[in-house]
Amino acid sequence: MKFIDLRSDTVTMPTDEMRQAIANAEVGDDVYGDDPTINKLEKLAAEKVGKEAALFVPSGTFGNQLALLTHTNRGQEVIIGKNNHIVVHEVGGSAVIAGVQLRTLETVNGIMKPIDVENAIRVDDIHEPETGLICVEEAHGCGSVVPLSILKEIKDIAEKHSIPVHMDGARLFNAAVSLGVDPKEITANCDSVMFCLSKGLAAPAGSMIAGSKSFIDKARKYRKLMGGGMRQVGIIAAAGIIALEKMADRLHEDHENAKYMAQRLSELPGVEVVRDRLDIDMVFFRMAEDVISEKTLIEKLYEKNIKINGIEADEYRFVCHIDVTKEDIDYVIDTMKSLIS
Amino acid sequence: MKFIDLRSDTVTMPTDEMRQAIANAEVGDDVYGDDPTINKLEKLAAEKVGKEAALFVPSGTFGNQLALLTHTNRGQEVIIGKNNHIVVHEVGGSAVIAGVQLRTLETVNGIMKPIDVENAIRVDDIHEPETGLICVEEAHGCGSVVPLSILKEIKDIAEKHSIPVHMDGARLFNAAVSLGVDPKEITANCDSVMFCLSKGLAAPAGSMIAGSKSFIDKARKYRKLMGGGMRQVGIIAAAGIIALEKMADRLHEDHENAKYMAQRLSELPGVEVVRDRLDIDMVFFRMAEDVISEKTLIEKLYEKNIKINGIEADEYRFVCHIDVTKEDIDYVIDTMKSLIS
Amino acid sequence: MKFIDLRSDTVTMPTDEMRQAIANAEVGDDVYGDDPTINKLEKLAAEKVGKEAALFVPSGTFGNQLALLTHTNRGQEVIIGKNNHIVVHEVGGSAVIAGVQLRTLETVNGIMKPIDVENAIRVDDIHEPETGLICVEEAHGCGSVVPLSILKEIKDIAEKHSIPVHMDGARLFNAAVSLGVDPKEITANCDSVMFCLSKGLAAPAGSMIAGSKSFIDKARKYRKLMGGGMRQVGIIAAAGIIALEKMADRLHEDHENAKYMAQRLSELPGVEVVRDRLDIDMVFFRMAEDVISEKTLIEKLYEKNIKINGIEADEYRFVCHIDVTKEDIDYVIDTMKSLIS
Amino acid sequence: MKFIDLRSDTVTMPTDEMRQAIANAEVGDDVYGDDPTINKLEKLAAEKVGKEAALFVPSGTFGNQLALLTHTNRGQEVIIGKNNHIVVHEVGGSAVIAGVQLRTLETVNGIMKPIDVENAIRVDDIHEPETGLICVEEAHGCGSVVPLSILKEIKDIAEKHSIPVHMDGARLFNAAVSLGVDPKEITANCDSVMFCLSKGLAAPAGSMIAGSKSFIDKARKYRKLMGGGMRQVGIIAAAGIIALEKMADRLHEDHENAKYMAQRLSELPGVEVVRDRLDIDMVFFRMAEDVISEKTLIEKLYEKNIKINGIEADEYRFVCHIDVTKEDIDYVIDTMKSLIS
Repeated sequence: MKFIDLRSDTVTMPTDEMRQAIANAEVGDDVYGDDPTINKLEKLAAEKVGKEAALFVPSGTFGNQLALLTHTNRGQEVIIGKNNHIVVHEVGGSAVIAGVQLRTLETVNGIMKPIDVENAIRVDDIHEPETGLICVEEAHGCGSVVPLSILKEIKDIAEKHSIPVHMDGARLFNAAVSLGVDPKEITANCDSVMFCLSKGLAAPAGSMIAGSKSFIDKARKYRKLMGGGMRQVGIIAAAGIIALEKMADRLHEDHENAKYMAQRLSELPGVEVVRDRLDIDMVFFRMAEDVISEKTLIEKLYEKNIKINGIEADEYRFVCHIDVTKEDIDYVIDTMKSLIS
Repeated sequence: MKFIDLRSDTVTMPTDEMRQAIANAEVGDDVYGDDPTINKLEKLAAEKVGKEAALFVPSGTFGNQLALLTHTNRGQEVIIGKNNHIVVHEVGGSAVIAGVQLRTLETVNGIMKPIDVENAIRVDDIHEPETGLICVEEAHGCGSVVPLSILKEIKDIAEKHSIPVHMDGARLFNAAVSLGVDPKEITANCDSVMFCLSKGLAAPAGSMIAGSKSFIDKARKYRKLMGGGMRQVGIIAAAGIIALEKMADRLHEDHENAKYMAQRLSELPGVEVVRDRLDIDMVFFRMAEDVISEKTLIEKLYEKNIKINGIEADEYRFVCHIDVTKEDIDYVIDTMKSLIS
Repeated sequence: MKFIDLRSDTVTMPTDEMRQAIANAEVGDDVYGDDPTINKLEKLAAEKVGKEAALFVPSGTFGNQLALLTHTNRGQEVIIGKNNHIVVHEVGGSAVIAGVQLRTLETVNGIMKPIDVENAIRVDDIHEPETGLICVEEAHGCGSVVPLSILKEIKDIAEKHSIPVHMDGARLFNAAVSLGVDPKEITANCDSVMFCLSKGLAAPAGSMIAGSKSFIDKARKYRKLMGGGMRQVGIIAAAGIIALEKMADRLHEDHENAKYMAQRLSELPGVEVVRDRLDIDMVFFRMAEDVISEKTLIEKLYEKNIKINGIEADEYRFVCHIDVTKEDIDYVIDTMKSLIS
Repeated sequence: MKFIDLRSDTVTMPTDEMRQAIANAEVGDDVYGDDPTINKLEKLAAEKVGKEAALFVPSGTFGNQLALLTHTNRGQEVIIGKNNHIVVHEVGGSAVIAGVQLRTLETVNGIMKPIDVENAIRVDDIHEPETGLICVEEAHGCGSVVPLSILKEIKDIAEKHSIPVHMDGARLFNAAVSLGVDPKEITANCDSVMFCLSKGLAAPAGSMIAGSKSFIDKARKYRKLMGGGMRQVGIIAAAGIIALEKMADRLHEDHENAKYMAQRLSELPGVEVVRDRLDIDMVFFRMAEDVISEKTLIEKLYEKNIKINGIEADEYRFVCHIDVTKEDIDYVIDTMKSLIS
């Protein structure tokens, strides 16, 4: 029997259509620029986010680190929210590869205040690092979506100070669905964006960065330096094209399911759902330890073919995606109920 | 009509069997360790090269840079042949990512002299960098294969000084075929090895690094730092398994074809084939400029559906691989004859 | 006429005794370990802070960056207060040289809460950087001194997790005076410490790092890498010895003067002195802009032979040191009064 | 009794005049730009080498590494002679701090062939690092001086390719004496130069870098990042001014003494002096091991108050400087004679 996997939307399986496309993909050597499927994907990706050019990269972390390396000079400082993926989940790569310092700001639900961003821009002082980049994360991994007005304010500040903005848009299309706008309206507020073809879009692997032509040209060479130049990678791109063309349109289902799951979870005793970070496909909640211990919950659900992650920062996170149906959610809740009683 | 592509063995197309395997691959989230196909590939790869463990990486460059990062401390020095891939074709990554200095040695046909390696190991001196790693390349990208005795001598020197050896074995299986030995006999002379599933083995993308369990454990975290943690990457691994299980056995055909092409090329006026670097699937030759210019040759062959690279270091390089048959070679030679006359 | 320079205690002039000692210093080539004056200084410095060994470095920034490089591996994370010198005033060097990420914590008067430090230590997770070092600053550059109990709590947490502690003790001796303890009682709570011979101690240049013998041995080689191996540097060390032997004992005068200046400043209209960061030789205060503008104040004081810095983070900072007497303070206040009225 | 120290010209003691100047130096806080003696030294140094601006740094290694950091972007490649100080004696710093790869060329007596330099400049290829800098060393640490014509050829090649040239001129003034030209004629062939105030010029410590105003402005901030911003460092600068104004004029004595020592050494049995690297203050020679062992020679000379270094690359190096007179040389030779017989 299959598992219901709530650990992340990174666990999504490629669809049958993707597998078919992969099997039949026309490929070539992408380092020579010969892979027609990659070329098509890069063109499509650029269009989707309203940028001049785009580049395929092996992962979201790769794309973010590549953007840092391309935008900055070593020793510069990057203004960023303190719980952003680049800060917490990329193994400290920005100091190793780009050689930049992260100036981390406090956030509310993952969202920096524009005034804090402006205050964090360094003045011209021989002691201080130069501010080289501002990073936003949209949607944020804590489950919230940054309002367009905030993104715009930050972009305006950045422009005033001639500092570029990079957007970690790993879940950009979720943000677009949540905001009810075209992704281009979001990415109008950044100079470069990274977004993932995997996660909610269900491609097996791969992410894209997009920006100006000169930015992508420079990034292409740095991608080679970082070991991201792959060969007949149209194999993966074939799934990526389907992800972009078809899967973005079904993300609203995951969001609805997440809200449904949140409501059902709140029926359970001792559960407190985080209501103000319920913008995309994730549900965060706390559960009283005396109702059921973390260890027990994980083990017992696993026995019932449900996979969840452990508590992080006091919260459980359950994630909805293409392989989680409404029926699955009911089954999860029923199972939890039986474990608790 | 299809092209005959002699530019590199990196241009090889995945076979139908690979495409089928890819389409049907059982996959999971590899960052969680859940991808059964990757797990199978990593186990198989470790066995093939006689190491405790192996790790999938997006490319050969990625694998080499990851090995440098894992073996060394910043500021150490790496002894390496001056024309090795790590020196010339990885965009200077070793100084950026691992932060190490390359001490490049003169080579004959890409092969370092063991005595030079020993002399290059730094003494304990406050001014000098510490020697942290020795790198060999087998087969070497210039077309030659390092004899086992040389590899053994270098490994013995390294052990005497407690310095690890990394092998850039992008074309390890070509070397094994050329030497007529099991790959394990080659890799017995290194602590870690990188080898490619693409190139002659025809998988669409991906490389492996292998070494001790502790080395691979450490490398797995650094892979995440470098952005090489991919998700349902069993999609690619499925082709990699076929590459390792079946394609290594046919590499001798490419070597025979290369020798045949060398012989036929030498029939042409003004062509001087490099005879002492004809160990694997590559033919290097010089061609008198007054017979035909580089530009004309490239363009005219392209019109006849033959792709070649331009001259590098005074030499043309034609590469044989699964998508180049003996008939293709005859066609290439006939076409060149007609262009020259 | 001489200037009264309130910009910093870094402006202190060497005393006549120092100049005499410098002129007569017995020197040698320190890279060969031949400089007797440096050797004496390093021995003395180690004793003063109760460590096995010490090393001369050109500056406080150099010493801090060298300590980071020596303690950590690239890619590790350093827990540190958000306004520490290493974060704000060292030009982003830690990402360039050591290649580490700074995890900056909120502070109250520059002081981290031990509980926050403990919570900031990373768990073993493939996504997260490894915590490699904890940094404290004592006294803190914002004018406060960290209580011994806090330092001890942080050190205990660090030991529990086997993480070293580095102390930026640029003004360590000021802290000792303020706490009324021997400096050794402070440095008992760290594995390494950097302290300056310049600043309040009035040597013309130079700082020391101290720690275990193995730490200093390793740091000595890295000092060479960073370009800090100087030759007949006993010239400077001669002043450093006097700084350590005699000048530490007069720092209480600067502290008393600072408190006197704070009291007198508060007499002025529109001035709000920061009372809870008045532990050492610095006075921070706000001054209503409508009383006198920043620009006017700086210029008018300069005309009266008084040098001050501009506002930083909404505050003026006036610093007392060996070249500022109580009479100078009265003159400064009187001058300000006349400017305002 | 005093030692005759032949280990290096780095062991030179400050003269009495220097000590006097140091004791009376007018100083200030150089980070604020307030040190009049440093300002005078930097102006003087720039004039001496015909550049727009100059900057004081703690050591020659610091100056070279700072120049690399200022000229390049991370990942670029630096063309340099294989035995240059930057390659061998700076602890691998260029990969750690600047993050650049050294492309080391073969040399004859430390001198690169211009044709090799030109051939080493990378073409525009996605695999290859970009050539960012060319480094020459004048005089070279192996005892030879690069002819002006070679420097000019290399500079012309560099300009053709828009690549800057940095000169490691640790012993620039020795080179000028040897060539019989003004130092400016040498430095006309580079964009930046580092030269030492210590070594033959006898200042106790410190080096200078010089170049265009924009280069020095940028380097000044990077100097702070590397920890080279010192405070009342006019103390050292006072000696540096004398070094530049007076000591350069006496270097010819050291060169004559070196030639005299070479002649006298060749009188000894088993001694073979290296004649073609006798351009400055150093004498290199081989000595038959059966005449006297390295260990014995060092120990026995030390007993007679003579300090020498051990063999490096098969050669002894004896260095003449201000503290070695012709009589000292006679004493050394006589002592060696008595040891051998």
